[in-house]
Parts: sequence; C-alpha cells; structure tokens
Amino acid sequence: MTPARLESFSDNVLAFAATLLVLSIAVPPLTSKEGLAGALGHEWPSFVAYVVSFSTIGIIWINHHATVRRLKAVDHTVHVLNLALLMTVVILPFTTALMAAYLKSRDGEHLAAAIYAGSFLLMAVTFQVMQRVVMLGRGHLVTGELSNAERRAFVNRSARGIPLYLLATVIAVVSAYATLALCGLLAAFYALPGTTADGPGG
Amino acid sequence: MTPARLESFSDNVLAFAATLLVLSIAVPPLTSKEGLAGALGHEWPSFVAYVVSFSTIGIIWINHHATVRRLKAVDHTVHVLNLALLMTVVILPFTTALMAAYLKSRDGEHLAAAIYAGSFLLMAVTFQVMQRVVMLGRGHLVTGELSNAERRAFVNRSARGIPLYLLATVIAVVSAYATLALCGLLAAFYALPGTTADGPGG
Amino acid sequence: MTPARLESFSDNVLAFAATLLVLSIAVPPLTSKEGLAGALGHEWPSFVAYVVSFSTIGIIWINHHATVRRLKAVDHTVHVLNLALLMTVVILPFTTALMAAYLKSRDGEHLAAAIYAGSFLLMAVTFQVMQRVVMLGRGHLVTGELSNAERRAFVNRSARGIPLYLLATVIAVVSAYATLALCGLLAAFYALPGTTADGPGG
Amino acid sequence: MTPARLESFSDNVLAFAATLLVLSIAVPPLTSKEGLAGALGHEWPSFVAYVVSFSTIGIIWINHHATVRRLKAVDHTVHVLNLALLMTVVILPFTTALMAAYLKSRDGEHLAAAIYAGSFLLMAVTFQVMQRVVMLGRGHLVTGELSNAERRAFVNRSARGIPLYLLATVIAVVSAYATLALCGLLAAFYALPGTTADGPGG
Repeated sequence: MTPARLESFSDNVLAFAATLLVLSIAVPPLTSKEGLAGALGHEWPSFVAYVVSFSTIGIIWINHHATVRRLKAVDHTVHVLNLALLMTVVILPFTTALMAAYLKSRDGEHLAAAIYAGSFLLMAVTFQVMQRVVMLGRGHLVTGELSNAERRAFVNRSARGIPLYLLATVIAVVSAYATLALCGLLAAFYALPGTTADGPGG
Repeated sequence: MTPARLESFSDNVLAFAATLLVLSIAVPPLTSKEGLAGALGHEWPSFVAYVVSFSTIGIIWINHHATVRRLKAVDHTVHVLNLALLMTVVILPFTTALMAAYLKSRDGEHLAAAIYAGSFLLMAVTFQVMQRVVMLGRGHLVTGELSNAERRAFVNRSARGIPLYLLATVIAVVSAYATLALCGLLAAFYALPGTTADGPGG
Repeated sequence: MTPARLESFSDNVLAFAATLLVLSIAVPPLTSKEGLAGALGHEWPSFVAYVVSFSTIGIIWINHHATVRRLKAVDHTVHVLNLALLMTVVILPFTTALMAAYLKSRDGEHLAAAIYAGSFLLMAVTFQVMQRVVMLGRGHLVTGELSNAERRAFVNRSARGIPLYLLATVIAVVSAYATLALCGLLAAFYALPGTTADGPGG
Repeated sequence: MTPARLESFSDNVLAFAATLLVLSIAVPPLTSKEGLAGALGHEWPSFVAYVVSFSTIGIIWINHHATVRRLKAVDHTVHVLNLALLMTVVILPFTTALMAAYLKSRDGEHLAAAIYAGSFLLMAVTFQVMQRVVMLGRGHLVTGELSNAERRAFVNRSARGIPLYLLATVIAVVSAYATLALCGLLAAFYALPGTTADGPGG
C-alpha cells in the first residue's frame, strides 16, 4: 500500500480536529450582566487554550508530514499506529474545552490542566512509538535517502518533547496556569525556524 | 469515472465522522457536586464508546481503502452503494453518543446498546453488499491483479464480522456492557497484525 | 487554473455538510417519561430527513463530479458560481434540522417544509446556472470530448429536477409530509441506475 | 517539501471552517410565541452574517490557491505562517455567531461588530505578512514564471483589502449595521469578475 491515502486521511483528521477547537469558544449569553466586554474578558482561557492547541496540532501536522514523506510504503501495523495517534489528536477539542472551562475555577483546575497537558503527552508518546516502529523496526518501508544513523537521530530528536510535556503535566499539581504557559511556550518554541521535527512527538 | 474522487470523498466523510465522535464527550458542568474527578469518572462510558467507535471507523477505513484500490473504474451503482455505506458511518456519532448516555441508565440501556451494535452491523452488511456487487458482479471494474477465486475469498473473508456484530446486537437484551465489550474486542482483534480486510464489513 | 483544487475543495464542503447532518439527530434526554423507545419513535422525522438530505447531497456530489471532470480549466467566474452552489449546500444541515423539528408540530410545519424543499430548489437552480454558464457560455473551459449538442443535452437534462423541487416546495402549503415524501422519492429515483446527471441540478 | 500537502491541509481547514458557519444559524424553539415565520424573521442577522462570512472564506480560498500554486516548494517558515493564517480563519465561526447574536442587541452590538470585522482584518493582515515573506523574501520558493516586479505587484494588490477592513472595524463604533454592510459589499466586490487576488489579504 502506498502512503498517499494514509497521508490524506491523517490530513483530514488533523484539520478537522484543529477546526473543531473553535467550538470550545462560547458566544456569551445576551443576558449576561457584566456586558459583552466583561464576558469575553472572563473567557480569556478559551482563547489562550484555542491558540495553544491549534498551534500544537499544527506542529504535529508538520512533523507527521516530515515522517510520512520518508515512507515509500505502509503496512497494517503502520495504519493501526497511525490511527492510534489520530485518536489522541481527536480528543484534543475535548481536553481543550475542559481546560478552558476549569482554568479559573477553584475546584478541578489542577485535574483539568493535568488532563490537558496529559493529552499532549499521550500524543507525543504515541507519535514516538509510531516513529520508532516505522523508522527503526521497518526499514524496508523507509525511502533510501536516510542512513541508519540519520533515522536514529530523527527518531531521538522527536523524543525531546516528551519530558517537557511530562513536566507540564506534573506541574499542574502546583498551578494550572503554569501548565498552560509551558504548553504555550513549547508550541511557540517549535514554531521557531529550524525546529521542524522537534515538535510534540515529532 | 476513475475511483480517485470516490476515494477522496469517502476519506473525508470517514475522517469527519471519526472526528465528530469527540462531541459525544461532554465537559462536566462547573456546578457538579461530585467534583471534576467524580464527574469524569462517571462519564467513563463516553470514553470507552469513543475509543471503540473511533477504532471501528479506522478499521472500516483501512478495509475501504483495500477495496477501492483494487478498482480501476467506478459506475453509478458503485457510487450509490458507497454513499449508502457512508450514510451508515455518519450515523455513528449519534449511536455512540446514545450508547454513552444510556449505558449506565436503568431504563433504555438495552435498546441503546442494541442500536449501537446494530449500527455497526448495518455498516458491515452494507459494506458486504457493496463488495459483493463490485467484486463479484462487476468484474470489469476490478484491476486484473486478482483471480476470480481470490476475489471470492476477499469478499467472503470480509463477511466474517457480520455474525459477530449480530451477536453483539442480540446480547444487548442480556447486558449492554457485554455488547460494548464485544464491540471493543472486535475492534482490538481487527487491529492485530495480519487481519486487514477482516474487519467490520471489510 | 486547473479544476483539481476546485474539485477537492468542493468534495470537502459536500462531505462535511453531509456529515454535519447527523447533528440534527438528538440523543433523547435520560429523564424522558416515555422511555427511550418512545422518544426515538417520536424522533422519526429526524431519521427520515437525515436519509433524504444525505442522499440528496450524495447525488449532487455525483453530478458535481460529472460536471467538473468535463472541465480542463476554471476561471474566476466558475470559482464564484461554485462557491455560491456550495453555500446552498452548507445551509442544508440547518434546513434539515428545521424540518425534523417542525414536521410534527401544529404550527410552522408548512413553512418548515417549504424552506426544506426550497433549499433543495435553490441548490438545483444554482447548479443549473453554474452549468449553463460553464458548459454553454465558456466552451473553452470544457474538454473537447463533448459536442455542442451534447453539452446542451447535458445541461437541459440536469434542469429536469427544478420543476419537481418547485412542486415539493409548493405542496408544503397542503402537507409537510407530502413535501418530505416527494423529496425522498426524488432522491430514491436519482439513485436508480442510469440516472446520473439527472439529479437535483445535475 | 512540496506544497501539495500544505495545500490539501489548508483546503480542509478552509472548507471545514466555512461549513461550520451553518452552526451559527439556530433552529427556533418550538415554544416560540411569535411562530416560526416571526422567529426566523428575527434571526435575519444570522443569515446575512452566514452569507458574508462564507463568501469571505471562499474568496480567501481563491486567493490562497492563487498564492500557493505559484510556489514550487515550502519551508518551515511558510508552514508556520500558513498555520497562523488558518488559525485566523478557524476563529470565524465564533466571530460570525457573535455578530449574529448581538447585532440587534442594545448592548454589546458595537463591540461584536468590531470583533467581526476585526477578525477579517486580522486574516487579511496575516495573509499579507505570509505573502510578503514568501513572495518577496523567499524568491527561491517561487516558480520562475513571475518577475520581481510582478511579484511585488501581486503582493501590493492583495494589501488593498486591509484599509477597507480597518474602516469596517472602526465604523463599528458608529453602527454595527454599517460594519456588516461594508463587509458584505467587500465580499460582493471581490466576487466580481477580474478581481481575483484582490480579496481580503489576497
């Protein structure tokens, strides 16, 4: 099987998941007492979480692209691992809405932040597993342009995000704001030039 | 007509239906008395149903791909059968949300589970009809790489899921949990290596 | 400009609009007094409207495909007409949900049905305008395989759905059920073999 | 990296954002006292905002297409700028729903209109930055068919929308209706023949 349809299906899912994030931003009810400006101001966690999650999905998309274009064929195992990765991405509109709803609450904000960063961590780990199985364990599927050492460097580079998302998950115990800030910093860092294939799981 | 646009349209619908599944996972209201952890804990049927349905759509996608890449052309009948198949997939976000909402209820959980497994059964049967019409009845549309015997084996292999989904539907009378577990086991089994084209209707 | 990206964008929009139709089927609230079976039974207009609308979008997709694959290039006017057509398709999840909600009501069901069939009529008329402008007025964009007479026959054949959708809109004054039945019959008829390019506006 | 996957991902996001706009049109509740006709009449801002936003996304799509088909390769910076552009498009279903909900309110309508036009302005500015960086600063990525002067003209032409969207944002202070009308006029103008690549940011 050629990777073309895997790539197109993955593109679709990543694009839809990123677009569905907008549903986590609610239109304030007309009856709100504080007025529209006040209501939107109180909703700032929704906007920040939207930007952080959209950027993170964008980066995973860039890195997914970088991985798949190095494949000349895919097999059943690659398909299944790729579906597992997509399943971790599609959950993000939920974890983003959860983070947005609970960030400013006095109850549950630590758990919501841990789930938020934890969903990025799960995505990064799943991507690392997929890359390790494909790049290192299934050399016959990889185009000839990469040497063994290059493949190993590619996979290891993409593991770098994992401890940082683990940190973001753990510090949720201390502060949900710190978790959101760290996830945002990671997305911003990976958007810098020269960092392709360093992103979350990529 | 070439199968390229049929494939791309189907990819879109399958990817979008899989992504919409996330909408069946609700953010617990801030006012919930049991706290966020308790509320999410009570919502476990949503998470399980999400994973089972996403996996099942993923497998039908793999099998759809395996079928369509064996076609060199499509006609009006193939288009209509394919649309009928897609219509059974697009209903899954509804049947999944129904299962998630009713699994733990004392009233309606048997019916909800029967509808849930029944929607997989309908999908599997529709896929089998499509495969039978295309592979066996429209040989001129199939690429030359498959012999008659191979085509028959391909179609028969993909019928294997039907009795199992029928069983999952029927045992809903006894236990909704058993239905969900069986649907999950089927998805897990089809994700094992070497089972491509054995999945629901595939 | 080549028609490839127009086709891919249109495929996306048609696929999403068809998939969003599922959101018009609501999960009955757990507190419903009539039980799940009764509640789902009362919701039958949602299921029927879903099937009719999904089929109609499927047929417009087949006919859109039949039109675009006869083009070798597209210009700004074709893009704009195509966007106008897509705008009439994207409204269908709304008109379908409206029909489903009001069919059994004693107030507003005639208007809802007229809007439902009227949205199909608008789609058919827009498609006819697009076809007329492209096929008859912009011959240099059409592949050489069709003669002038064939092009005219192609366009005229696709106008046949218009009076029938007009009828479906008008009889809403008498009965909303008749409107839904006629729209369903039209979708079923166009799904029959040999009717390609006879569908709504196609 | 080739631009093909960037184009396909962008197509998906643009198409999906345009389709999600339909969710900002609500089905009036059955219990509404004014009847369905009255309720839909009161909802006219939803319909107008839907048409204006859908048209604007359609035009940005045409212009995005016009830009990307002039690229022979893309790098990390182009990917990141493109994701930033898409992030400004995906927010439109929210700003459109906000505009629709608040246009006729006595409180907040000016702010809602400023946010609505402001989201178009942000999109136009982001597109201009992307075009400037790609077309003028990364000549090696552009196909050879355009001279330096043509590239500069292409980019400058697409900056024309910016002051007009700025105006639409500013006049929200005076009248939310004027903002909506101006945004509608801009979309209609760009739909005229011969205006390709003059649209919002394009």
